[in-house]
Amino acid sequence: MSPLTPASELDIPSHCKAGVVVNEGPNFEVKVEMVPVPQPGPDDILIRLNVTGLCSSDIHLMQGDLGLPPMSSFGVRSPGHEGAGVVVKVGANVKNFQVGDRAGVKPLTDTCGVCELCWDDKETYCRTAIHTGLMTAGTYQQYIVSPARYASPIPDGVPDEIAAPIMCSASTVYRSLVESGLRAGNWAVFPGGGGGVGIQGVQLAKAMGMRPVVVDTGSDKRSLSLQMGAEVFVDFIETSDTAAAVIDATDGVGAHGVFVTAPAAYRSALSFIGDRIGAIIMCIGLAPAQSMTLGTDPNEFIFKNLSIKGTLIASRRDTAAALDFARQGKLQQICEIYPIDRLPEAVDRLRRGKVAGRIVVDFNKSELSKR
Amino acid sequence: MSPLTPASELDIPSHCKAGVVVNEGPNFEVKVEMVPVPQPGPDDILIRLNVTGLCSSDIHLMQGDLGLPPMSSFGVRSPGHEGAGVVVKVGANVKNFQVGDRAGVKPLTDTCGVCELCWDDKETYCRTAIHTGLMTAGTYQQYIVSPARYASPIPDGVPDEIAAPIMCSASTVYRSLVESGLRAGNWAVFPGGGGGVGIQGVQLAKAMGMRPVVVDTGSDKRSLSLQMGAEVFVDFIETSDTAAAVIDATDGVGAHGVFVTAPAAYRSALSFIGDRIGAIIMCIGLAPAQSMTLGTDPNEFIFKNLSIKGTLIASRRDTAAALDFARQGKLQQICEIYPIDRLPEAVDRLRRGKVAGRIVVDFNKSELSKR
Amino acid sequence: MSPLTPASELDIPSHCKAGVVVNEGPNFEVKVEMVPVPQPGPDDILIRLNVTGLCSSDIHLMQGDLGLPPMSSFGVRSPGHEGAGVVVKVGANVKNFQVGDRAGVKPLTDTCGVCELCWDDKETYCRTAIHTGLMTAGTYQQYIVSPARYASPIPDGVPDEIAAPIMCSASTVYRSLVESGLRAGNWAVFPGGGGGVGIQGVQLAKAMGMRPVVVDTGSDKRSLSLQMGAEVFVDFIETSDTAAAVIDATDGVGAHGVFVTAPAAYRSALSFIGDRIGAIIMCIGLAPAQSMTLGTDPNEFIFKNLSIKGTLIASRRDTAAALDFARQGKLQQICEIYPIDRLPEAVDRLRRGKVAGRIVVDFNKSELSKR
Amino acid sequence: MSPLTPASELDIPSHCKAGVVVNEGPNFEVKVEMVPVPQPGPDDILIRLNVTGLCSSDIHLMQGDLGLPPMSSFGVRSPGHEGAGVVVKVGANVKNFQVGDRAGVKPLTDTCGVCELCWDDKETYCRTAIHTGLMTAGTYQQYIVSPARYASPIPDGVPDEIAAPIMCSASTVYRSLVESGLRAGNWAVFPGGGGGVGIQGVQLAKAMGMRPVVVDTGSDKRSLSLQMGAEVFVDFIETSDTAAAVIDATDGVGAHGVFVTAPAAYRSALSFIGDRIGAIIMCIGLAPAQSMTLGTDPNEFIFKNLSIKGTLIASRRDTAAALDFARQGKLQQICEIYPIDRLPEAVDRLRRGKVAGRIVVDFNKSELSKR
Repeated sequence: MSPLTPASELDIPSHCKAGVVVNEGPNFEVKVEMVPVPQPGPDDILIRLNVTGLCSSDIHLMQGDLGLPPMSSFGVRSPGHEGAGVVVKVGANVKNFQVGDRAGVKPLTDTCGVCELCWDDKETYCRTAIHTGLMTAGTYQQYIVSPARYASPIPDGVPDEIAAPIMCSASTVYRSLVESGLRAGNWAVFPGGGGGVGIQGVQLAKAMGMRPVVVDTGSDKRSLSLQMGAEVFVDFIETSDTAAAVIDATDGVGAHGVFVTAPAAYRSALSFIGDRIGAIIMCIGLAPAQSMTLGTDPNEFIFKNLSIKGTLIASRRDTAAALDFARQGKLQQICEIYPIDRLPEAVDRLRRGKVAGRIVVDFNKSELSKR
Repeated sequence: MSPLTPASELDIPSHCKAGVVVNEGPNFEVKVEMVPVPQPGPDDILIRLNVTGLCSSDIHLMQGDLGLPPMSSFGVRSPGHEGAGVVVKVGANVKNFQVGDRAGVKPLTDTCGVCELCWDDKETYCRTAIHTGLMTAGTYQQYIVSPARYASPIPDGVPDEIAAPIMCSASTVYRSLVESGLRAGNWAVFPGGGGGVGIQGVQLAKAMGMRPVVVDTGSDKRSLSLQMGAEVFVDFIETSDTAAAVIDATDGVGAHGVFVTAPAAYRSALSFIGDRIGAIIMCIGLAPAQSMTLGTDPNEFIFKNLSIKGTLIASRRDTAAALDFARQGKLQQICEIYPIDRLPEAVDRLRRGKVAGRIVVDFNKSELSKR
Repeated sequence: MSPLTPASELDIPSHCKAGVVVNEGPNFEVKVEMVPVPQPGPDDILIRLNVTGLCSSDIHLMQGDLGLPPMSSFGVRSPGHEGAGVVVKVGANVKNFQVGDRAGVKPLTDTCGVCELCWDDKETYCRTAIHTGLMTAGTYQQYIVSPARYASPIPDGVPDEIAAPIMCSASTVYRSLVESGLRAGNWAVFPGGGGGVGIQGVQLAKAMGMRPVVVDTGSDKRSLSLQMGAEVFVDFIETSDTAAAVIDATDGVGAHGVFVTAPAAYRSALSFIGDRIGAIIMCIGLAPAQSMTLGTDPNEFIFKNLSIKGTLIASRRDTAAALDFARQGKLQQICEIYPIDRLPEAVDRLRRGKVAGRIVVDFNKSELSKR
Repeated sequence: MSPLTPASELDIPSHCKAGVVVNEGPNFEVKVEMVPVPQPGPDDILIRLNVTGLCSSDIHLMQGDLGLPPMSSFGVRSPGHEGAGVVVKVGANVKNFQVGDRAGVKPLTDTCGVCELCWDDKETYCRTAIHTGLMTAGTYQQYIVSPARYASPIPDGVPDEIAAPIMCSASTVYRSLVESGLRAGNWAVFPGGGGGVGIQGVQLAKAMGMRPVVVDTGSDKRSLSLQMGAEVFVDFIETSDTAAAVIDATDGVGAHGVFVTAPAAYRSALSFIGDRIGAIIMCIGLAPAQSMTLGTDPNEFIFKNLSIKGTLIASRRDTAAALDFARQGKLQQICEIYPIDRLPEAVDRLRRGKVAGRIVVDFNKSELSKR
């Protein structure tokens, strides 16, 4: 997967394939076109992506239902924010990457680096952060420019199709697991954990010594969850009282932490903590704007020492940590790998939901495969 | 305040004064009666209280509107859970108190001491904790029995009328401040902070290096708040946009922490965090059961790294820490001191609200005074 | 292992077997004698031990070379501080144990429970703690009295011969791992990690997501270490530059944490941190009094953000946590199981060193076995 | 102090005054010369310093006794690493500073910003950090270039002569206080705390709610210490048993933390912890290379839950936090202010020791003054 021979600058074409949105809005479409390869500035690198992940927030961005300005207002046509590839050109000032190095692109293309949020391990909240695939061309485009300071080095031993989704989903869940304060031995419940983001949470929780429980439905998700480290799988369709089943599984008390990656799961999240004292609900997955309230009686917060907390994507350090777990073999990616020419079909499947695991798109392949 | 001569056992009368509830329920009354002085068991101490604090949850317990079993179901007639006095008798096995030592009684009379919650610094959530003034006679009764293991030693230099309210309100706020994770230099906002609990939070926050802001109303509360360490007082009646005033006061960004001691303040708490990243709303004051929901859009948790958390009263260690701040002179108590015979009047005032600071009742005095 | 039928009080004999020290001092001997079965007080339980672990500090206590008062000054003849068995009698006040429950005895028989150290998660440092096997009869005696509040419940699924050494060694290492602050993914180096204490550290570190490296010698310890979760084993005899080998194994940088369970390893501990910034050396194993200094140039602390820290045994909570890892199957015990009648031989082997894993003594068996 | 009118670029002279070292080594001298004003690159700012602090490590750098390469090997003649002034020119890419903004220069001129240490709140340990006044011209030179990303904005209300020493000494102590883990109410002992660095530690500790104790000598340092917030001053010359006096002052137990800013104090640091459980010795002041060992018997680490830890200067975030305390008025600077032309005399005084508080040099003044 990682290239045996570093790309020389001679390899850089004038144009490259890119998935672009057409008719941005509720009825958007995606097409694959040839677009000009951009030029890196003096502090930038040019990356030739091998793989891009597909994330459901791509759909939301193209639909324009997150309450953000449209992509087109930034002159951007390609979404995508989890890419893995090879550096093919470096700007004159760049010291931390060389041509041939592996590099990944994350949901943020850059942050200011000089505000108190950036200094205080909260760089993802930087007020002037640049969002990949919204404010600048995303990873649906094969050649992409990144500030060298913000690209993530990808270690040897982590294949591109595993590295790409780590750029967003795995590292986002990692951050949430860290901020939850859960300890090794604690029960971590993942409603919707059989999905693309949740299943990485399951693996990371296990790698951190926690005890994952997945609440989801279907035999595919059951077997995937158990294979990836869940100790218990509760099928919310087959189970008459899902909350009771979760509480029963967690020593009869309830979850120490509930990690919500799927919006629908916010409604049930509080039911999984049972009588656990000091539990925490972690908000990870963005919900349609103003669609719901997550909360409870103040007395329940008080009597149960309950917390609710949210985290937004992941810093460079979190991504490095998640990549390191992958390097140790603790983070697998079960994914379908689409060739770039079938990107529109992949986007459609994601749009209709029901993707097991993750879809990634390989810019170099011409056949569908699984991993 | 602290007695110069230790009480000898000879001093123990057969009966003592106690405020007792009559007609428990919405129309309860309080009377002062003579009741039998209880006998300590081998692991207990008998404390002659000099002072009891009055807490609004006393009212709720006598009204029976917290969703808990009535006091009478435990055979209890005296509420009260913050008392300070002197040990007048010790059980045969007691090693940690001597006759003449000062001791305080807290909202919990005892915990099991052997469950994982007790071991894990969560003793106030112990499933078999005994609640003072509900499940066992409270501090409205002058002579009271406490397990020696759970009574709090009161250090020299802390007068009884300061120590008593520390047993509940100050140590509860201290616990909340600790669990909030706020650092020195952070903005701590106290809606309703001019009240009896909040004003102790203001002092403790200041003692911990935080920067307190009080949102309340009236010139009395303004001057008290500023005197006790608030940097800013926002009068929610005189100010057209209270949230904007709070945000403006907190470097134009918003609170790092909001400490809600008064139920009414839950409705506005979220407005005070502004655009602060990583802020936390701390739930302290119990609300009437099922009267409200505290929460917000999951996206707001995510985009702001927002937390909501609750804590329930305070452990023995927290109480010791709060007493230590009082010993350093950093925790004053502005209170009206009622003689025991005027307890019913004091309860009535508390029931009608609008008490500035705290009311305490002195078992030894016959005149109303202020401090 | 755990008894199928609860012991009735009728089963309690008047006398039981006990390993007792003879000629306390450098030339001590151990004999097995019949001693009277003690009577529990009202707050105590009487435990019939099935298994006691043997710990090298037993040897030091019998030799009297730790700078502590001799066992005989407390009227104690039996050492031992890691025992697992069954409750056969409970005192009148006891609520947290019933006859037939499984219970363990730890290095501390009791603490005061009412000092700030006890409240502040530092109970093992309680100034009036009672040391098992020094100040009160130890676990070399089959029937032993414990205050009910301080005995540790043993969960189902954890065999006695695994539970017993958890009472001291595993829970001590667990505490050290927790206080080290290491995160999942960090390198935890165990010099002497092939021994009885270290090998439990290896398993617990792995269970907490850390990456264990063992520095020890011999093929037995190598295979045991790798089997128990060490990623790397460095044989300090076969390796020309042990420190370089450790640094090389830890991403070429050095250990995040070094956990010293064997006194000899203090001399090399600092060499394993290499150029790691923020590393910590954790002191666990007691050294012969005044035999060495552990430290370095203040500038090295500064330039490397280096810490050295010590922890002393483990609290009840730590023990519960370690038992929970055993319940999950993450904490195995490789041990030789001696029958009680061959205790003197087992003690002799321990005294001469070179025990691989742990020795435990079974009070019910008559044959040597391994696990 | 802060300029009323922003400097225009027209104001930039071709040459400026600078203190430069002559005869680097044990017998160095300092002279004031005119040197060329440097030109900022596209990512840099040019700062016209109003004030530079003098730090004893300047002396060590000029003497060449820290085991580092000589200044001359980097072509550097001016030491100094704590400067405060005004931005007079900005590079083409700079967004976070404008001409006229106030800015400070710290011990590090820059870090790489892209290594795991930089990401992990350990930027001061960055392997490719550039040290001000050693590897690049220091703050003894009036006009100085700084990468815009690493200069510290100075808030309104903090005078230059207070801001300058915050760049190094105050923020270094702040970092140490944070990493010590001490809580509000804990005893923080500062041996040598009457000196320039220590006295800032005293103020910051107080601002964070800790209780400072200073061990130093002389009536000047006594009165300064008490004025700046020390609760107790122990004069090590007038006191027969200094350690006993410190232990007595700290509730009879001992320090929670000992903050060593002066090398000589490493020898006594451990004596101040007494019987405190969980105390920590923090190493701050660099000692002459290989001149001493800081450490103790491993058993003492274990029996006392003792820690020793070091920290190296301070991150941008720490500096911002220390500046914020100054903005609140909680960080005063007692200093003698030398005019730049008398810099050699100021350096000589520092070299001979015995400076009370801090010496700063004002580039704009012609008379000695005090503050």
